[in-house]
Amino acid sequence: MKMLHFAVLFAILLSSSSHAADFCVAKLKGAGNPAGYACRMPSKVTVDDFVFAGLGVAGNTTNIISAAVTPAFVQQFPGVNGLGLSMARLDLAPAGVIPMHTHPGASEILFVVQGKITAGFISSSANTVYVKTLKKGDVMVFPRGLLHFQINAAGINSIAVVSFSDPDPGLQITDFAFFANDLSSELLEKSTFLDDAQVKKLKKVLGGTG
Amino acid sequence: MKMLHFAVLFAILLSSSSHAADFCVAKLKGAGNPAGYACRMPSKVTVDDFVFAGLGVAGNTTNIISAAVTPAFVQQFPGVNGLGLSMARLDLAPAGVIPMHTHPGASEILFVVQGKITAGFISSSANTVYVKTLKKGDVMVFPRGLLHFQINAAGINSIAVVSFSDPDPGLQITDFAFFANDLSSELLEKSTFLDDAQVKKLKKVLGGTG
Amino acid sequence: MKMLHFAVLFAILLSSSSHAADFCVAKLKGAGNPAGYACRMPSKVTVDDFVFAGLGVAGNTTNIISAAVTPAFVQQFPGVNGLGLSMARLDLAPAGVIPMHTHPGASEILFVVQGKITAGFISSSANTVYVKTLKKGDVMVFPRGLLHFQINAAGINSIAVVSFSDPDPGLQITDFAFFANDLSSELLEKSTFLDDAQVKKLKKVLGGTG
Amino acid sequence: MKMLHFAVLFAILLSSSSHAADFCVAKLKGAGNPAGYACRMPSKVTVDDFVFAGLGVAGNTTNIISAAVTPAFVQQFPGVNGLGLSMARLDLAPAGVIPMHTHPGASEILFVVQGKITAGFISSSANTVYVKTLKKGDVMVFPRGLLHFQINAAGINSIAVVSFSDPDPGLQITDFAFFANDLSSELLEKSTFLDDAQVKKLKKVLGGTG
Amino acid sequence: MKMLHFAVLFAILLSSSSHAADFCVAKLKGAGNPAGYACRMPSKVTVDDFVFAGLGVAGNTTNIISAAVTPAFVQQFPGVNGLGLSMARLDLAPAGVIPMHTHPGASEILFVVQGKITAGFISSSANTVYVKTLKKGDVMVFPRGLLHFQINAAGINSIAVVSFSDPDPGLQITDFAFFANDLSSELLEKSTFLDDAQVKKLKKVLGGTG
Amino acid sequence: MKMLHFAVLFAILLSSSSHAADFCVAKLKGAGNPAGYACRMPSKVTVDDFVFAGLGVAGNTTNIISAAVTPAFVQQFPGVNGLGLSMARLDLAPAGVIPMHTHPGASEILFVVQGKITAGFISSSANTVYVKTLKKGDVMVFPRGLLHFQINAAGINSIAVVSFSDPDPGLQITDFAFFANDLSSELLEKSTFLDDAQVKKLKKVLGGTG
Repeated sequence: MKMLHFAVLFAILLSSSSHAADFCVAKLKGAGNPAGYACRMPSKVTVDDFVFAGLGVAGNTTNIISAAVTPAFVQQFPGVNGLGLSMARLDLAPAGVIPMHTHPGASEILFVVQGKITAGFISSSANTVYVKTLKKGDVMVFPRGLLHFQINAAGINSIAVVSFSDPDPGLQITDFAFFANDLSSELLEKSTFLDDAQVKKLKKVLGGTG
Repeated sequence: MKMLHFAVLFAILLSSSSHAADFCVAKLKGAGNPAGYACRMPSKVTVDDFVFAGLGVAGNTTNIISAAVTPAFVQQFPGVNGLGLSMARLDLAPAGVIPMHTHPGASEILFVVQGKITAGFISSSANTVYVKTLKKGDVMVFPRGLLHFQINAAGINSIAVVSFSDPDPGLQITDFAFFANDLSSELLEKSTFLDDAQVKKLKKVLGGTG
Repeated sequence: MKMLHFAVLFAILLSSSSHAADFCVAKLKGAGNPAGYACRMPSKVTVDDFVFAGLGVAGNTTNIISAAVTPAFVQQFPGVNGLGLSMARLDLAPAGVIPMHTHPGASEILFVVQGKITAGFISSSANTVYVKTLKKGDVMVFPRGLLHFQINAAGINSIAVVSFSDPDPGLQITDFAFFANDLSSELLEKSTFLDDAQVKKLKKVLGGTG
Repeated sequence: MKMLHFAVLFAILLSSSSHAADFCVAKLKGAGNPAGYACRMPSKVTVDDFVFAGLGVAGNTTNIISAAVTPAFVQQFPGVNGLGLSMARLDLAPAGVIPMHTHPGASEILFVVQGKITAGFISSSANTVYVKTLKKGDVMVFPRGLLHFQINAAGINSIAVVSFSDPDPGLQITDFAFFANDLSSELLEKSTFLDDAQVKKLKKVLGGTG
Repeated sequence: MKMLHFAVLFAILLSSSSHAADFCVAKLKGAGNPAGYACRMPSKVTVDDFVFAGLGVAGNTTNIISAAVTPAFVQQFPGVNGLGLSMARLDLAPAGVIPMHTHPGASEILFVVQGKITAGFISSSANTVYVKTLKKGDVMVFPRGLLHFQINAAGINSIAVVSFSDPDPGLQITDFAFFANDLSSELLEKSTFLDDAQVKKLKKVLGGTG
Repeated sequence: MKMLHFAVLFAILLSSSSHAADFCVAKLKGAGNPAGYACRMPSKVTVDDFVFAGLGVAGNTTNIISAAVTPAFVQQFPGVNGLGLSMARLDLAPAGVIPMHTHPGASEILFVVQGKITAGFISSSANTVYVKTLKKGDVMVFPRGLLHFQINAAGINSIAVVSFSDPDPGLQITDFAFFANDLSSELLEKSTFLDDAQVKKLKKVLGGTG
């Protein structure tokens, strides 16, 4: 009988503090708000909302950069909404490269699962280059918002797992920002000092106009 | 006449800066987002949204722990939404105990209103125990996320008021997390080193299965 | 042909990381949530959502304070939603004054565009006054939440641009909080030590009752 | 023997994750940094750093406001450093009043321990007054940065415990900011529209000059 | 000559904006402050401060839990200080288990590098168990502050890489908090409902007293 | 005599809540911590710590970009430490350009003081270009971490005042990050797809090696 009381008590405790703050699995419909996406009702959430299988499959590297980024950001993995982190998988074929890019506002940490990767970032203070060839098991951190890149340094496929300090870190590839849109060549050249021929060539490659 | 101008001016000032950021009384329907709940329209908010009477009533301690927690979290007191704090009342009958628990991500501060309470928390760094018997008027702080407990140390009813550093601090009672659900005894025993008999006994008390 | 591959690759990269976190232009309908307002769909956002022309026009200073505040807060300029800043323009005719006020929770930085302004704030620690007459091009910072004011110190119109550390800084003018509402004279006098005649006089000027 | 292994293992686990992040008891010497004060070495911290006895003693209300505020802010109670909260005790004799004030950047939640208190705050949006007479056990929340006050509404001493959403909430009493320093009467009158006689009178009471 | 000017200009730009905010490699001496540790001078920082080799080595699993946690928290990897993330490696021999634990205030994301792992967490709201057996390449997220565990589910060694949303996530293993210190058996039994025999047994195993 | 009491009371109130949290003027010696710089003692702070005159002077635009950035970041203006904002002045001679750059982690808001400026930023989601020619008085916001630029669009000198959402926003000029250091041409070309001739040319202009 005491046990009954016991269970009843805790049921009362529980009901009076039921809440949804443990997690907030994203409803991706709608464009969210500054803190992320609206939460799905906790009662409809299952363990599968916290598990993501997409990083177990190698990305397709049959392309000009011989590499692939497979993200597990909030858009692909709604379970990370509001939790302050996300993940991605990098596949680099022997000639693979993840081109120079930033994540606006998120830091990144990389773990080499297989192969060797030459990775680097550039500081804003003194434009200092921090570059290192990482072997399997090595970890490197890339501070938030800074330009960085990863290049395969093994004769074989290399794989890395990377994590971010935000569920929605963004990805701004410099070449894309410069050459894969309708930014006028005139403005681009003025603001980058790149030659017109260089700009035209890369705009053509990346499908840019203007 | 100057006074008229004066009023008119400020009316202009006012209308141009009308905003809702002072407060954000929660609309509890829907499951919120990572920053809390959507705001009710300020025009519909009254002083009663900022006042909560529920902590003036003693909780029912006629139960096996001889204690009660009465929360004024955002779910009970929508006025604290977005304001970075909340409150609760603890009632402990002479044999009362608030069992070992954590608030995931919120710190707690306790003020003894009546009686005496033995309270403690355990650090994660060195598993150091910080325990003290508090008398009326004493204050103790429990750092965020750490295991802690409160036990009546007076021959009479003890009462405390506690505040949290979050409108939605959560409450994870270890016994409940372990024994009041369908977590399989096998997984629980492997991950806690508790004996099967102990697990079965408490699962029975708390209504757990598996 | 390689170029085709190149474009295709990046298209894949892109589609897998499309996201809305770069910005979150506010949908002002509805009262928002603790982190700001819901985002408009990025596909409907244009450059004009990031541009605000309202600060190019002098505010109307034909009023008793001979001054005007023109805000570019999130309510007027939805593009700043979630970006941690906002702006306003101050116009002060020769006798102009921005009366004693606070921004609850936001700091302010002021740049004198034209004229001279005597500005000051008062610390909470020791009630120390920090006051200075600023000339064109001078910058002054007002720490978050503290009482401050600005008074024209030139024989001509003075103009300043101010920025805030929040898209929705709020504006609580002490005189308004005290005298422009229905706060009872009795409570106001008890809580401010102002004389009844003073209270009645300013309530009349500012349209207050009670 | 297995038990020995067990203990050894965890010792290894432990040593590899020893850290100081659970808490950060303030070293008050020095003026801190934007996140608070430097931490004392965890090895020198005891339970007494997390316990504060000062709120158990009634403040001295034999003064003109017939009231007292006893703070347990980080300066008095170093254990709350970095934990996002703090506390204070209010004592109000029958005629007691906590004058109109703000906490720059912190919200407050009040619990009436004894007596009755008329409390109110004023919004910045519309200068709306939210005022209520609270009885024993009632809770009221005051949103961050807004002007508010508390006045005894009982014929007896009233007591409240208040908590803040910051270890260092600050306290800016409007009367002190206006009248208890060397802010010139001219600037004060221009920026508050108070009469010279009123200003002079209160400067004299509060020890102000200028 | 124009080029000279060009270089000179940028040198000016640079010098006027030299700063240390890109990163803040920790000086571990001293106990830090609420935001982390003091920064080493940027001029003394090299790429090796951003690279950590310790996760490339398998942890020693010859112990009673047949498992090991190798952290790359700020204490081991000072380069992550202030960057909002950290990492660790889990090694689980065939019978390996990472016992029930929390990270006070940090979320965790896990990637299975090798083998199979049964992982789970328990919500605070309804004590719901979210448990799943993960295969190589699977990712699972554990929301901040909640109890969770990992158990090898393969006949071979399993390896995982985990990341956290904080440079200093902490690690509170429930068994250690309960049984590996001097918390008195009486208080522990009152606050956990565990039997005296169970408590005594595990205290003996884990080296606890009291 | 009552007045004496009054002053005494408040002196007591004051002394018990003296604190340094209003502001935290930076001690720039030392490299700070993740939250900024250590605070100077409040007693040594004067109004001049909150005032900065450096933006009143035109920057020297006699250089190849015909432009200058004059920062009032925490390094130049220690008064903004911990206050969540900072400022800078842009001077653009008729051919002036602020080259493509990012502020890692800070948003920017720009006010045109004089002339006309063509400004733009590029989103990371879809590489969309948001570009506009701004006239005197126009305001434009640049979301945190995204590539942006400003080009004079008037026949005369243009001037802008810009504010940031951080006291230490950083400034990473893409050309500098790519060409003004010892990053090897091989790695740079692999990670940017720029031609070797282009890289060599700009490295020469900007003083880079490798």
